Amino acid sequence: MSAFPLSDLTSSLRVAPGPVDLGAIETDVAPGFDGDKKAGTAALEALGPDLAELQERLFAEGKAGGQRTILLVLQGMDTSGKGGTLRSTVGLMDPQGVRITSFKAPTEEERAHDFLWRITRALPPVGLIGVFDRSHYEDVLIARVRSLAPPEEIERRYEAISAWEADLVERGTTVIKCMLHISAAEQKERLLARLDDETKHWKYNPGDVDERALWPAYQEAYEIAIERTNTEVAPWHVIPADKKWYRNLAIGTLLHDALRSFDLGWPKADFDVQRERQRLLDEKPL
Amino acid sequence: MSAFPLSDLTSSLRVAPGPVDLGAIETDVAPGFDGDKKAGTAALEALGPDLAELQERLFAEGKAGGQRTILLVLQGMDTSGKGGTLRSTVGLMDPQGVRITSFKAPTEEERAHDFLWRITRALPPVGLIGVFDRSHYEDVLIARVRSLAPPEEIERRYEAISAWEADLVERGTTVIKCMLHISAAEQKERLLARLDDETKHWKYNPGDVDERALWPAYQEAYEIAIERTNTEVAPWHVIPADKKWYRNLAIGTLLHDALRSFDLGWPKADFDVQRERQRLLDEKPL
Repeated sequence: MSAFPLSDLTSSLRVAPGPVDLGAIETDVAPGFDGDKKAGTAALEALGPDLAELQERLFAEGKAGGQRTILLVLQGMDTSGKGGTLRSTVGLMDPQGVRITSFKAPTEEERAHDFLWRITRALPPVGLIGVFDRSHYEDVLIARVRSLAPPEEIERRYEAISAWEADLVERGTTVIKCMLHISAAEQKERLLARLDDETKHWKYNPGDVDERALWPAYQEAYEIAIERTNTEVAPWHVIPADKKWYRNLAIGTLLHDALRSFDLGWPKADFDVQRERQRLLDEKPL
Repeated sequence: MSAFPLSDLTSSLRVAPGPVDLGAIETDVAPGFDGDKKAGTAALEALGPDLAELQERLFAEGKAGGQRTILLVLQGMDTSGKGGTLRSTVGLMDPQGVRITSFKAPTEEERAHDFLWRITRALPPVGLIGVFDRSHYEDVLIARVRSLAPPEEIERRYEAISAWEADLVERGTTVIKCMLHISAAEQKERLLARLDDETKHWKYNPGDVDERALWPAYQEAYEIAIERTNTEVAPWHVIPADKKWYRNLAIGTLLHDALRSFDLGWPKADFDVQRERQRLLDEKPL
């Protein structure tokens, strides 16, 4: 599919097929990037204009009949930085070309449908980059940990997700799945920091601490979900996310690699450029 | 409503009540701003972080039960810079806090409803900033010029719009209505520039030149629409938009003034901060 080799960074984040052991993946490292925070921040900044231009080319292609889209799926424990990624990385692109959906607990109407119903409705139109802040994966993560669905339904969902994603890919969507991977200790630091800063109290929810008690169960649910849905057409990436600068750079690079793989030009004019020029120059005074 | 005086720039863009003469409003000026392009670009850049923080406060307020939203309505002739404004000004804020809707010709389903049906569905949820790229005003602009609805229906719509907007304002939305005002000569330059640049051919539509022949009819339709819907609670602004830097700065200042008028703090914690701190520090190892 790709006309470009993946960058080192993207390659090193791809999860290999087979069982997943999140405990064995460090959270405070910067795989595929040989530099410190300052260099990483500069690297993302340097990527910005190129990312924005490639996104515009994708948008233009969509207007001209192209069928391609990108779907970036962001998953991670509370405080892992999904919101920060949206602000710092997704925010580098023209907001007109990006469609962000934040999935909360399903509404009554949504619960009256298959779990993929509301997800399908949120898919980006052609030419756009869709970003899911949480996603259908909640239906095999919190749903598993909190027993919100029977075990056999959870089982069914892994297959359903893989089939649904394969169909998306078949129809022109590049699916980039990312788990923002932080340590339990880092989450504790971030929750304490929210408590220590009055401007961040609104982000704090006492329920988050109750949820922390289930940390091992969530990690296990992630391991199973990643293994079961880590297909060749829609592979998973685990992003070490204790370092915010690395997390931002990593997601930026994944988007950049996906956009580059499209080898996007600019749509050719479907009209006579000279004739249009002349029409404008010849027009009667308004 | 406002705890802050309007900036000079905002005041000078507000359309006075009564008949509107767009021909008498210059398009290549920079009312309320005493500086050149370099200074204007720097002024918008300086506004960026403050705009982003105020937007986050509004978002936080919405999460904490607040009911306020902002609705920015962008109208203007083709090439007047609605898209550029979204990229350069709206793009300064966190994309999670902004909901952009670009209105095209209504679909069959939309046409089977009142013209305000699809507009109402696109309103921003509490705490968000909604941005309309075109809007319900198309239903009294192109609809009038192209006779897409009977004259009595167009008449009805001015009243319906004012009542609908007044209701929005009543329920906590600040409605900022802007017409991006360019000259016919400037539009011609911009269309020619698109033809001269292969990377912009996709933005060019031969139909735009046909539409240009109706320039005077559109200007008249704007004048009537602005006069008829220029209410005290939802006033119109005409933004001289030949200078792109001024257009961006003006919209940024209008948003900034609206956000400042909310006098936004940060939501107070609705939990016991010390107790939460202790819970985290006392937790059993995970």
